Amino acid sequence: MTVKTNPGNFFEDFSVGQVLRHATPRTLTTGDAALNTALYGSRFAVQSSDVLARAIGYPRAPIDDLLVFHVVLGKTVPDISLNAVANLGYAECVFHAPVYPGDTLSATSEVIGLRETSDGAAGIVYVRSTGSNQDGQKVLDYARWAMVRKREPGAPAPEPVIPHLHKAVEADRLGDAVPFLDTKAYDTWASGSGDLWDDYAPGERIDHVDGMTVEEAEHMLATRLYQNTARVHFNQYAQASDRFGRRLIYGGYVISLARALSFNGLANAFHLAAINAGRHVAPLVAGDTVFAWSEITDKEPLSGRDDVGALRVRTFATKDKPCDELPGLTEEGHAEGVILDLDYWVLMPR
Amino acid sequence: MTVKTNPGNFFEDFSVGQVLRHATPRTLTTGDAALNTALYGSRFAVQSSDVLARAIGYPRAPIDDLLVFHVVLGKTVPDISLNAVANLGYAECVFHAPVYPGDTLSATSEVIGLRETSDGAAGIVYVRSTGSNQDGQKVLDYARWAMVRKREPGAPAPEPVIPHLHKAVEADRLGDAVPFLDTKAYDTWASGSGDLWDDYAPGERIDHVDGMTVEEAEHMLATRLYQNTARVHFNQYAQASDRFGRRLIYGGYVISLARALSFNGLANAFHLAAINAGRHVAPLVAGDTVFAWSEITDKEPLSGRDDVGALRVRTFATKDKPCDELPGLTEEGHAEGVILDLDYWVLMPR
Amino acid sequence: MTVKTNPGNFFEDFSVGQVLRHATPRTLTTGDAALNTALYGSRFAVQSSDVLARAIGYPRAPIDDLLVFHVVLGKTVPDISLNAVANLGYAECVFHAPVYPGDTLSATSEVIGLRETSDGAAGIVYVRSTGSNQDGQKVLDYARWAMVRKREPGAPAPEPVIPHLHKAVEADRLGDAVPFLDTKAYDTWASGSGDLWDDYAPGERIDHVDGMTVEEAEHMLATRLYQNTARVHFNQYAQASDRFGRRLIYGGYVISLARALSFNGLANAFHLAAINAGRHVAPLVAGDTVFAWSEITDKEPLSGRDDVGALRVRTFATKDKPCDELPGLTEEGHAEGVILDLDYWVLMPR
Repeated sequence: MTVKTNPGNFFEDFSVGQVLRHATPRTLTTGDAALNTALYGSRFAVQSSDVLARAIGYPRAPIDDLLVFHVVLGKTVPDISLNAVANLGYAECVFHAPVYPGDTLSATSEVIGLRETSDGAAGIVYVRSTGSNQDGQKVLDYARWAMVRKREPGAPAPEPVIPHLHKAVEADRLGDAVPFLDTKAYDTWASGSGDLWDDYAPGERIDHVDGMTVEEAEHMLATRLYQNTARVHFNQYAQASDRFGRRLIYGGYVISLARALSFNGLANAFHLAAINAGRHVAPLVAGDTVFAWSEITDKEPLSGRDDVGALRVRTFATKDKPCDELPGLTEEGHAEGVILDLDYWVLMPR
Repeated sequence: MTVKTNPGNFFEDFSVGQVLRHATPRTLTTGDAALNTALYGSRFAVQSSDVLARAIGYPRAPIDDLLVFHVVLGKTVPDISLNAVANLGYAECVFHAPVYPGDTLSATSEVIGLRETSDGAAGIVYVRSTGSNQDGQKVLDYARWAMVRKREPGAPAPEPVIPHLHKAVEADRLGDAVPFLDTKAYDTWASGSGDLWDDYAPGERIDHVDGMTVEEAEHMLATRLYQNTARVHFNQYAQASDRFGRRLIYGGYVISLARALSFNGLANAFHLAAINAGRHVAPLVAGDTVFAWSEITDKEPLSGRDDVGALRVRTFATKDKPCDELPGLTEEGHAEGVILDLDYWVLMPR
Repeated sequence: MTVKTNPGNFFEDFSVGQVLRHATPRTLTTGDAALNTALYGSRFAVQSSDVLARAIGYPRAPIDDLLVFHVVLGKTVPDISLNAVANLGYAECVFHAPVYPGDTLSATSEVIGLRETSDGAAGIVYVRSTGSNQDGQKVLDYARWAMVRKREPGAPAPEPVIPHLHKAVEADRLGDAVPFLDTKAYDTWASGSGDLWDDYAPGERIDHVDGMTVEEAEHMLATRLYQNTARVHFNQYAQASDRFGRRLIYGGYVISLARALSFNGLANAFHLAAINAGRHVAPLVAGDTVFAWSEITDKEPLSGRDDVGALRVRTFATKDKPCDELPGLTEEGHAEGVILDLDYWVLMPR
């Protein structure tokens, strides 16, 4: 007989080059898409309407990119971050193929770096995680690093390996998750804005205006939908003795909320093509109200296609702080109230 | 560069005859139908069972009529009522065609009336909104009026135009959203009651008995599902300084709740064919418990068909007040605790 | 004119041998399956992935067994337990056929026993309820008994009839809801554990480790999804004067939560084949955190098939009490904090 419950992996269990196959393949359906709408209220027309999606060249409305991201990340939790002290960052997240209702996602991770912490009690584990569909086609990959406890503090650690990760995804790697579009058929009445790629310029700043208050039931429904089992999100009995005293909301929930809020100002940014970097600056708990604003930081055409172009966007989300004064960085770091600092690429019709 | 966020339209931006196309076409799915069941607990058998629906002549179970209504109304919010001070009423709401999972709805509105308020700071905007499916077929239309702020108080206003709206939809306009039914195959065991159209008479009053307490997460999930972005429903940070100090629940949520409660007494009223008038007498907030009762106010056969007949129903919903004493109108207006006064037509098998 | 609302049946209304057809046939969809995932976070791979289900011999991912159970039980409430004082137990619950998205369930109950309580004010009603699909095929049946009020206390009662119910379902009655599986294609990476039927032994005890806090919105969404109308779950206005002062959570919600938690330790127990006995030891209310642990109490091969074997499991769920010390029975009864004591059979690949 063996121990049957999953204790998760500790720092000692990882080695560079190791590949982990994660459990629970997941068929995504229109049921998941409906829940995604109910949870965030997203209004990007391509994901909302089969008719509009078909008119421009999709076989049907694709699944929201961040729903794909959350489902893939959720699968990695039991193997990568069950014993994590902190999730430290993401990089080089690229969407490679569209996902449609009926597609089945599974996930693997490769360990690409390991570095013991200075106190010897834990270490940073760097992985590159990949989500694939039922045909084995890669739909998403991203690098992520987390601080993971050692099983035995002071246990010997391997030589440090720190992967070289790009600060940003190169623009010529964007767009594989979007078929060539007939953008003449893209209806800017239907999409909610006449502002297309050509109408945005680097340096532009947009307050997304609206605020959304979060409830315990909402973030737990979302996080379970992703089959993400990280304990801090669900167990108030245990969290009561945590330093926050509260369930902590899955960081990806904040990303999806900020993305839904960003519709008001970026309505034609129908595809999130890549995440360059993401930082959860402060935790979010139920009862807080989330606001967001964005700065356009770069603008690139895509090589070999003139249907869509890329905008690099930096979105700051706040809690209990409207964004009309665009709170972002100060000399001491992030402004008070900022909870998310996300650097990503979106595509817009040209 | 333009301002990218939607400021909504102000009173000055409307003109009689103006047609507005609303954003975000929406494909409805069985996922939306499942959420509708989870949110309200509706038990009308035709919408619940493909087998029963097919037996009587539908191609499959149709989408709940009020889900169609909420989705269409939600689309109109960014253009019509983002700057509304108050939603004043509905009239002449008629369902024209059934909606099935897979259908895609879009919406337009025509301005049919404008009237400045006496203080010159706002005006009443009357619109007729229409929801259409992917074939351009009209599935629903209704008149609605709201008080909308001016951008500049005191700005000049056009000559008042007040549309003539009927107090009730004529019975011969009902039923287009229901195929001719083989009511011999309508199973009153399955539907939950043997009481059919012939068993109801004008003047009859029915306490729907059950009460349902509402939570913040529930009404926000619903309202986001409809992609309705009206701020008062979502933003507790802003609402804290509002006169109620709370998020206000979307009025349509109350209508759907009352309709679901009305199953207990009107189990065979499977189709809501028209709304004659609706008034939200008082706001509902989370934590309140909703009850409902109904009076049958009229009864009409439908011309050219004897499969179904129409009942005109007036349903009162209350908060924190059971309806065994049928609280409705008093000499001073609505009885204490009444939150909804809805006058509508339902169809029942004969 | 008749009274149109359903008063429910009282003890006097039942007679042994009576068959009740329950209302509201229900087509289950991928929307219901998505909500089931969002509500409980279940991770059993067969129900999660069409690809994995097909690889081993299902036509597609089946609907979660307990979702089937809850939907069937929900239909019986208006006729059996609307006037129940207490739900006393279940027995002989057997799953007979798989249920897939698109299937339509309906339910009937036969009265199999009646016994007046000693004070003459109520009586125990024993029913065998059956859920069937659109082809009339039985998918589930179970015995259940509840204490139901008399309409008139002291009304005469029939001779007592107490049905003989087995303490456990015989192992040779298990497995009809599972097609013969190609277990060579069963992927234990995908399922989350390499521990199969051969790896478990009677006497083994497993702490499922994780805890899940419950919110009002969650249990009400679930219970409405099942179209279960029992009043104690929904009406805080009425419950405020109940002895608990709170909405009571549907017992089946606890069963589904415990089953989802049991994944951590029983990941390959993909099918709940039968429930031998279930007892809700104490009520659960929102804000409580649920934990669970299990003991393997028996282990049987299935006659005529060697693809899967049966494990008999006894799962205890607790509230606000982690299960590392395996709280179960004491000399005085159930240990403090125990809310559920469930005896059931699961199938696992061999």
